[in-house]
Amino acid sequence: MNKGHLIGVGTGPGDPQLVTRRAWALVENAGVIAYPTPDTGSSFARSIVAEAISSDAIEIPMIVPMRPGRAPAQSIYDEAAAAIGEHLAVGRDVVVLCEGDPLFYGSFMYLLVRLKESFPVEIVPGVTSLSACAAAQARPLVARSDVLSVLPGTMDDDALTVAIEAADAVAIMKVGRHMPRLRALLRRLGLAETALYTSHASLPHERALTLADAPDEAPYFSMILIYKGDDPWIS
Amino acid sequence: MNKGHLIGVGTGPGDPQLVTRRAWALVENAGVIAYPTPDTGSSFARSIVAEAISSDAIEIPMIVPMRPGRAPAQSIYDEAAAAIGEHLAVGRDVVVLCEGDPLFYGSFMYLLVRLKESFPVEIVPGVTSLSACAAAQARPLVARSDVLSVLPGTMDDDALTVAIEAADAVAIMKVGRHMPRLRALLRRLGLAETALYTSHASLPHERALTLADAPDEAPYFSMILIYKGDDPWIS
Repeated sequence: MNKGHLIGVGTGPGDPQLVTRRAWALVENAGVIAYPTPDTGSSFARSIVAEAISSDAIEIPMIVPMRPGRAPAQSIYDEAAAAIGEHLAVGRDVVVLCEGDPLFYGSFMYLLVRLKESFPVEIVPGVTSLSACAAAQARPLVARSDVLSVLPGTMDDDALTVAIEAADAVAIMKVGRHMPRLRALLRRLGLAETALYTSHASLPHERALTLADAPDEAPYFSMILIYKGDDPWIS
Repeated sequence: MNKGHLIGVGTGPGDPQLVTRRAWALVENAGVIAYPTPDTGSSFARSIVAEAISSDAIEIPMIVPMRPGRAPAQSIYDEAAAAIGEHLAVGRDVVVLCEGDPLFYGSFMYLLVRLKESFPVEIVPGVTSLSACAAAQARPLVARSDVLSVLPGTMDDDALTVAIEAADAVAIMKVGRHMPRLRALLRRLGLAETALYTSHASLPHERALTLADAPDEAPYFSMILIYKGDDPWIS
């Protein structure tokens, strides 16, 4: 019997219209669909493509407890990989939904590493939150021969300072509860005037603000963009 | 009279199936479409969505001479912005096709800066070559609390060394004729064994290789990915 394919599908930043044609078609035709879901609330990845999911599809929710600053237990991915592997072993493809892009800060890697030696894999890349935040602001993310650094907001001030000073363009991801500290740091670095803050890019409740206007209580899905390149973008 | 919208549309890395639903629909309904095209050969951005372009659409090719290592004359964008502006001024939307994502190393910024003060703007983000190369290799681009740096292959060895040593994950873009030098540098840094080389990601002639197996003559549309994070990805 032929084995099923493990298919990691990027669902993009949130707007169902920003799903790729291939991702949408794969979800429409999927017999088995897996996705991460928090222990309280519903799955963001699933919500993006909900309209495309067949009522006949078998769904495998991977319940991932959300605890700030702590990675979920690896046993969650052991169990999910086992459940997915049972379908793959009998020849059924499994579509795994991933917010944004499957290989850009995603939890899909934990499934991939557990299953890639045993089953054929396909990855369908998606639009990242990085691109969606730049689009919301209508400002270049990175241009010409610039260096772009993508930094997690969890980094400490010293490490952030070194990384920000070395780059032409910077995206600080996972801002969340680090917002007051990050804003104070960027003020000290003289970048607070031109930095941009975006949350929930591409969703109806998207906010595209300057850093000065950003709330102190930032959601996890928010980002700060800094561009230090030449004019005309600093104006 | 209402002004038309300038709409920057990311066409993704090359596979027409990796165009977003919104981008595809905008191209299908576009009355005026602009795109960069080389002085010899045909437009890559246009080729990706060719099937969606209406035979009635007005097309504005922006002829961009391709000279290695040199940016095209700004007069090209002055002329293109003027031609696009004539349509916007009389209320016609203009869709500008952009390979990958409009704001990720794209020439769309040159039109944006010329037109954004006079006309409403919309940006439709696209899948970048960065995500497409990681997908072709089925390896994480960046994970957990990693720092990702995106570096142009045109940087000199000293600057590249500093940037590579500071990051957990690195993408070197625009490899092209810099390939032999970049490979020698990564050998000296002890990273040549694990680095990956991808060209024409998502296209029928995609090549996903290790850096060791990569050709000395690399095309402009090629990328080196380095991941220095923890196991299980270095194995």
